[in-house]
Amino acid sequence: MLRLGVGQMEPVVHDQDGNMEKMRELLSSAAKEDVDVLVLPELLNSGYFFENQEEAIEMSEQIPGGRFSSELKKWSKKNRMVVAGIDEKTEEGLYNSAAVFGNGKHLATYRKIHLFDAEKIWFLPGQEVSPIINFKNYRFGVIICYDWAFPELSRILALNGAQVILHPANLLLSYCPRAMITRSIENWIFTATASRIGVERGTKFLGFSQVTDPRGHILLQMDASEHGVAWVDVDPAVADEKMITKQNNVLKDRRPELYGSLAEILHKE
Amino acid sequence: MLRLGVGQMEPVVHDQDGNMEKMRELLSSAAKEDVDVLVLPELLNSGYFFENQEEAIEMSEQIPGGRFSSELKKWSKKNRMVVAGIDEKTEEGLYNSAAVFGNGKHLATYRKIHLFDAEKIWFLPGQEVSPIINFKNYRFGVIICYDWAFPELSRILALNGAQVILHPANLLLSYCPRAMITRSIENWIFTATASRIGVERGTKFLGFSQVTDPRGHILLQMDASEHGVAWVDVDPAVADEKMITKQNNVLKDRRPELYGSLAEILHKE
Repeated sequence: MLRLGVGQMEPVVHDQDGNMEKMRELLSSAAKEDVDVLVLPELLNSGYFFENQEEAIEMSEQIPGGRFSSELKKWSKKNRMVVAGIDEKTEEGLYNSAAVFGNGKHLATYRKIHLFDAEKIWFLPGQEVSPIINFKNYRFGVIICYDWAFPELSRILALNGAQVILHPANLLLSYCPRAMITRSIENWIFTATASRIGVERGTKFLGFSQVTDPRGHILLQMDASEHGVAWVDVDPAVADEKMITKQNNVLKDRRPELYGSLAEILHKE
Repeated sequence: MLRLGVGQMEPVVHDQDGNMEKMRELLSSAAKEDVDVLVLPELLNSGYFFENQEEAIEMSEQIPGGRFSSELKKWSKKNRMVVAGIDEKTEEGLYNSAAVFGNGKHLATYRKIHLFDAEKIWFLPGQEVSPIINFKNYRFGVIICYDWAFPELSRILALNGAQVILHPANLLLSYCPRAMITRSIENWIFTATASRIGVERGTKFLGFSQVTDPRGHILLQMDASEHGVAWVDVDPAVADEKMITKQNNVLKDRRPELYGSLAEILHKE
C-alpha cells in the first residue's frame, strides 16, 4: 500500500519567499500525515501569469540545484517521493518542468511537451515523454496540466507500465477533473492531480486537486479554495490487472495494427 | 445546420417482428421531426445477450440486402442519413456492424473493431476503422459501443476529418456517457450516442443516449427507460475550429514525433 497525497497552494509571481513558505507548509503537513508520494502543483516556485519574459526568468531555478528543488530533495530523504512543478532555468531557456525526488535523490525531470496558451511564449516545449519512475516497487509516470488533453501521452505511460500518473497542474479549464476519470478508465490506472488555487492577475484557478482510481472513482477531491494536503491509501498494483471483463484487457484490446492513420501522421509530421 | 437525432429502443432476441416494429416507430418519429441524421442503437435487429451461436445467426441479416437494412435504406431516401447497429451475416461469419444509409444509398458499413465480452464469441472483429462519410457537406465517422474506451479510434476519425462521431451502442457501463464528453473535448468534435433500454436476460441496459458538442456540453441526454427519438440542431462545421485558445489547436498541439512508444507498439504487435 502507498499513501498518495496531493497538495494545493497559491504560488504568486514576485514572491519566492512566500511560495517557499507555502510549499514548506505542505511538505510539513505531508510528513506529519506519513504521505509516501506527494504531488505538488505546476510552477509552484513562480506563479503562472507572467507579464513578460523577465518575470518568468526572475522566478526560475535550476533543477536539481535550485532553492525549491533542494528543499524538495531534502524532504524526500525519509523514504518519500515528491513531484513538483518548477519554472526551470536551463542554458537554452526556460521549461515548464516537473522535478521528481525520491529518497534524497533527483530521480527525473519531465519537461511539459504540450504547452498551454502563453506558456508557448515563456517556455520551450519539452522533447521527451516522462520516464517510468520506480519507487517502493511501484511505477509512476508524470504529465503536467494541459497534457491531460492528449490521450496519447497517458496511453504511452500506461503502455510503458505506469500504475499511477502524477499530474502537477494549474487548472483553469473545468473539463480536466472529469477527463482524468476517462484517463483512469481507458488505461486502468490511478491519477493524482495537484492543482493550484487563488486569483492571479484577474484569473481564478480551479483548485480541484483529485485522485482517481482505475475504475474511475474519485478517491478524493479538494475544493476551489483549500490550502493544504489531502491523501488516500492506494494499492498501485491494482492497476496491473487490466481485465475489465473476463474477455477484455483494456490495453491488449487495442488494435494498433488498425490505427494506421495515427502512425501515418506520426511519420509524416 | 443539421438536425441530429438519436433513437432509443429495446431490441429483443427471438423477436424480429417486434424489433422491426420498434425501429419503424423510431424512423417514423424522426421523419415527423425532420431529423436529417439519425443514430439508432447497436444490434437493433437482434438483441444483445445471445445464449448460443445459433441465436446470433438466427437474428442476423446481410447488409444492405436484409430486412432491417432495406427499411433503413428506404427511410434515407428523402435526403436523410441513418446509421444503425446490425447483427451482420457474411460468408466468413457474423459481425457487430453499423450500416450507414443516405439518400437511398448504402454509404458504408463499419464493423466493430473492439469487441466487448461475449461478443468475442459470437462475432468476428472488424478489420478497418470507419471511413469518413460525407453527407450534406458534413463529415461523419462511426464507432460502436465499447469502441468509446479507445481514444485512438476517435482520434483517428477526428484526424481524418470527422466533425461528428456517430455511436450506436448498447450501454452497460456507466462510464461511457461521461467519457464521450472527453472524446468531444480532446478532439473538438460532436458525438451522438444511441443506446438501448430494457432488461435482457437479467441485465439492465443504461439508456442514456446523448449528444455532446466540442466544448463538452451535453446537448441532450435521454433517460434509462425512454423509447423514442430525441434531437438537437447543430452546426457540425463548428468542429473544424480546433483552436481552444489563441495559441492552442487541439489536434496540431499533438507531438506525434514524441509518441514513439505508441508507434513502436504499433509495429511490434
